[in-house]
Amino acid sequence: MLDRRDFLTSTAAAVPLICSVGGKTYDVSTAREVDEADAAAAKTARPAAKAAQSEFPTPEPAPGGQVREYWIQARSKRWDIAPKKVDEWMKNRITGRTKFRAFVYQLMSSGFADPIGRATMPGPTLEAEVGDLLVVHFRNADTRLNQAVTMHPHGVKYNPEYDGAYMGDYTRAGGFIAPGEEFTYRWECTLGSVGVWPYHDHGPNHTLNTMRGLFGAVIVRPKGAAKPDVEQVLMMQSFAPQVTRLPRLFQAVNGRSGAGNTPTVTASVGQDVAFHVMGFDSNFHTFHIHGHRWKDPTGTFVDNPGFGPNETVTARFEEDNPGRWLWHCHVFSHQDAGMAGWYVVN
Amino acid sequence: MLDRRDFLTSTAAAVPLICSVGGKTYDVSTAREVDEADAAAAKTARPAAKAAQSEFPTPEPAPGGQVREYWIQARSKRWDIAPKKVDEWMKNRITGRTKFRAFVYQLMSSGFADPIGRATMPGPTLEAEVGDLLVVHFRNADTRLNQAVTMHPHGVKYNPEYDGAYMGDYTRAGGFIAPGEEFTYRWECTLGSVGVWPYHDHGPNHTLNTMRGLFGAVIVRPKGAAKPDVEQVLMMQSFAPQVTRLPRLFQAVNGRSGAGNTPTVTASVGQDVAFHVMGFDSNFHTFHIHGHRWKDPTGTFVDNPGFGPNETVTARFEEDNPGRWLWHCHVFSHQDAGMAGWYVVN
Amino acid sequence: MLDRRDFLTSTAAAVPLICSVGGKTYDVSTAREVDEADAAAAKTARPAAKAAQSEFPTPEPAPGGQVREYWIQARSKRWDIAPKKVDEWMKNRITGRTKFRAFVYQLMSSGFADPIGRATMPGPTLEAEVGDLLVVHFRNADTRLNQAVTMHPHGVKYNPEYDGAYMGDYTRAGGFIAPGEEFTYRWECTLGSVGVWPYHDHGPNHTLNTMRGLFGAVIVRPKGAAKPDVEQVLMMQSFAPQVTRLPRLFQAVNGRSGAGNTPTVTASVGQDVAFHVMGFDSNFHTFHIHGHRWKDPTGTFVDNPGFGPNETVTARFEEDNPGRWLWHCHVFSHQDAGMAGWYVVN
Repeated sequence: MLDRRDFLTSTAAAVPLICSVGGKTYDVSTAREVDEADAAAAKTARPAAKAAQSEFPTPEPAPGGQVREYWIQARSKRWDIAPKKVDEWMKNRITGRTKFRAFVYQLMSSGFADPIGRATMPGPTLEAEVGDLLVVHFRNADTRLNQAVTMHPHGVKYNPEYDGAYMGDYTRAGGFIAPGEEFTYRWECTLGSVGVWPYHDHGPNHTLNTMRGLFGAVIVRPKGAAKPDVEQVLMMQSFAPQVTRLPRLFQAVNGRSGAGNTPTVTASVGQDVAFHVMGFDSNFHTFHIHGHRWKDPTGTFVDNPGFGPNETVTARFEEDNPGRWLWHCHVFSHQDAGMAGWYVVN
Repeated sequence: MLDRRDFLTSTAAAVPLICSVGGKTYDVSTAREVDEADAAAAKTARPAAKAAQSEFPTPEPAPGGQVREYWIQARSKRWDIAPKKVDEWMKNRITGRTKFRAFVYQLMSSGFADPIGRATMPGPTLEAEVGDLLVVHFRNADTRLNQAVTMHPHGVKYNPEYDGAYMGDYTRAGGFIAPGEEFTYRWECTLGSVGVWPYHDHGPNHTLNTMRGLFGAVIVRPKGAAKPDVEQVLMMQSFAPQVTRLPRLFQAVNGRSGAGNTPTVTASVGQDVAFHVMGFDSNFHTFHIHGHRWKDPTGTFVDNPGFGPNETVTARFEEDNPGRWLWHCHVFSHQDAGMAGWYVVN
Repeated sequence: MLDRRDFLTSTAAAVPLICSVGGKTYDVSTAREVDEADAAAAKTARPAAKAAQSEFPTPEPAPGGQVREYWIQARSKRWDIAPKKVDEWMKNRITGRTKFRAFVYQLMSSGFADPIGRATMPGPTLEAEVGDLLVVHFRNADTRLNQAVTMHPHGVKYNPEYDGAYMGDYTRAGGFIAPGEEFTYRWECTLGSVGVWPYHDHGPNHTLNTMRGLFGAVIVRPKGAAKPDVEQVLMMQSFAPQVTRLPRLFQAVNGRSGAGNTPTVTASVGQDVAFHVMGFDSNFHTFHIHGHRWKDPTGTFVDNPGFGPNETVTARFEEDNPGRWLWHCHVFSHQDAGMAGWYVVN
């Protein structure tokens, strides 16, 4: 299914993966090294400092703000990067295996009673307004990879207890959630939190587990602000073959590769449309929509702004141009490997 | 002329090329794979949807606007990346072959009667004002590569018929111009089109053919706006050795590599000077001019802003500093491989 | 200590190094090629044009401005990339050798009488206000590498004599300072110079010598502007193994790799804090501080802006969040290879 040359060139085309885990730095260029890094992550000891009592006051909503409560679990699951087996843009057959063991955040009902819908990549979008408190009950429900994971958010305010980052001996409670454990994060939505931000795993094996799918978005709006009529989060990242064990590199959006597999966004003329686009790998990307332009934060019209990992660009405009349009990253090697999709305007 | 080690390291230093063409995704890391991708492009069938009648009204200029008419053909031609055989910056001899078969847009007189000047890289700069309609008569005049190509513009407004993008079964008329065929694009210059934008091939083999030189610029100014006294478009991209068959990677600006080969821009103190710089490969770049600073769109002074593929940065300032200056991309491996030139102020 | 596979994968993960020096372009992927480039640099002839008398008036401070005088020498020295032998973030032991021959700018007392403190990476931060003249007495004090080096500043204004750039036959006096030689640069701080900028070697072997540590920062403030209470310059770059002869690639900040080795920044609640972050290699980077957000120049809140080589991003905010926080580049392969550090707020 995969000849050696293709595998090597695919790997070469992938982002180099360097992982520091279990006391060692790995150049993770082969599947065997991924196994080693995973084994090291599984053996990572609970940090001594973790049990320390917090000296920080418990965050509460600002006056007039609400508690926005979410129940989210992390688990690994089989994931199909290209369920349609085709990239409709280039009429490109996607041959060979396309499923791998992903690691995803899944929205649950209160008390982790039941899943709400299927687990997705990205995980559930958390929404709040300025003054609100995001209360996220998180459970590491994975039974396969045996590794501590976390939720680390951008944009919102938190004290160190709720940072969700493994930091060796300086790790706080929310930074090491072992399989079977739960933790409740409390994140404040301040004036400076307005925007669209990523959240992601920041545990001991964050580079591999983020690539596997442990990422999502937080949207904080000004108090009372209207939502756009159409709002789409797009997360651009790559699936390196050494991690997926698949025969090629896939450039993906929301965990899927190739137009028809990635989200087909639909809107109508006159609607207020917003795309929020973030990167989740070690590359920079751009976001281009055919037939459209919009103002960037400087007031300049753009149609293809660039951004780095965990940066966000928002394309927001009043829709005025009906048709079937492509959106894609304009890094040539990314668009041709699947980082593209459809936008259909009626 | 080329030992294996040098070729491999040059290739490793090149941008990885991934092409989706003819129903397959290629990791194009060797000249043989380029041949395969070209052969697949030559066999790409005319999309079934192409013949469909348009349901869109024909675009016209806004009231008070003009039709700006261009006649442009695409053809392959021998191109010398370094005609002076030297990089004057580092006094660096450029040894070995420097010519390859490029693919370029060429400005023609009305009715494709005659070429206007020599074919250049980038192609002709299209200029218009807000309210104007760009009418671009395009002909695929190539007789060698036997592939459909297109013109896809950024910034301007167009309906799907004039998008100039191959989209498999969803391709419209302007998205597949086979050798010998002609097509007329009609692009509207709206308020949101003000700026400097790229145009480029978006046909079935766009990644290879864009790298070969099928790119140019569109400048849309506010109605009645003055042109700068000196205005220079600079397009930064790389020529991968597997595509050019040349013994090394060249980092290029406007298709040329090394100071003395790239444009030497000249100005005088007191003049209004504008450089419009775009990227046309899979890398990010920066644009630095020695001895100069200018305001970016936020009003911050900069002298080395970064940008991704098909993004534009403009450096515009009143000239106040006589001398011979370098301009260059500040990615170290790019500047040393030729992405630099002279700016001479009297 | 280093098996071949590890060395190759480390190298592959490094930035490709292309150096144009001594009349030739090198793909510097091995230590032997670094030696060749160094030997070529040592043989680079003094440019003929260097002796030419300047036709430019000698720069002076603007009325009311001051002369800000610095004495700086360049020399190579042994440098430890990871003196603590650990990355405290991931509790990652840094095994193997971590010292190499660096090339650094060192602050001296008047007349080059004595070193002021130890030589550091980055070199001394030059500070001035609008209207001032920076007068930098520079000496190439290196006795090992036998190469001409320079100081080339961004942001400030200078005439070609003080550009500090080797330009082959067009080199001016400040662009080729051979071992044992001295040169005095005169740089004007204009209104457009306000900001934080890099300076660095721009001599005949600038790519290698900048990677070895020949870089620093210039800060120009508006007349009378207050300094932040806490101000930290962070310079992100990578040490390629072919240059350092060390067994792995190190991603570094201020010449050090891994939290605990890189600067631990401290501040208190209520203080005015500024981080100025620049890139000094061929990669793009981002700057993320956990638990913090700040306004970018558009007024948008960010917590992880991206930037290219020799671009600056400033994170400035009133401190409001006590704790031990991570700051890091969010390119996954960079953060895990050491591009991270601590920020401790009391």
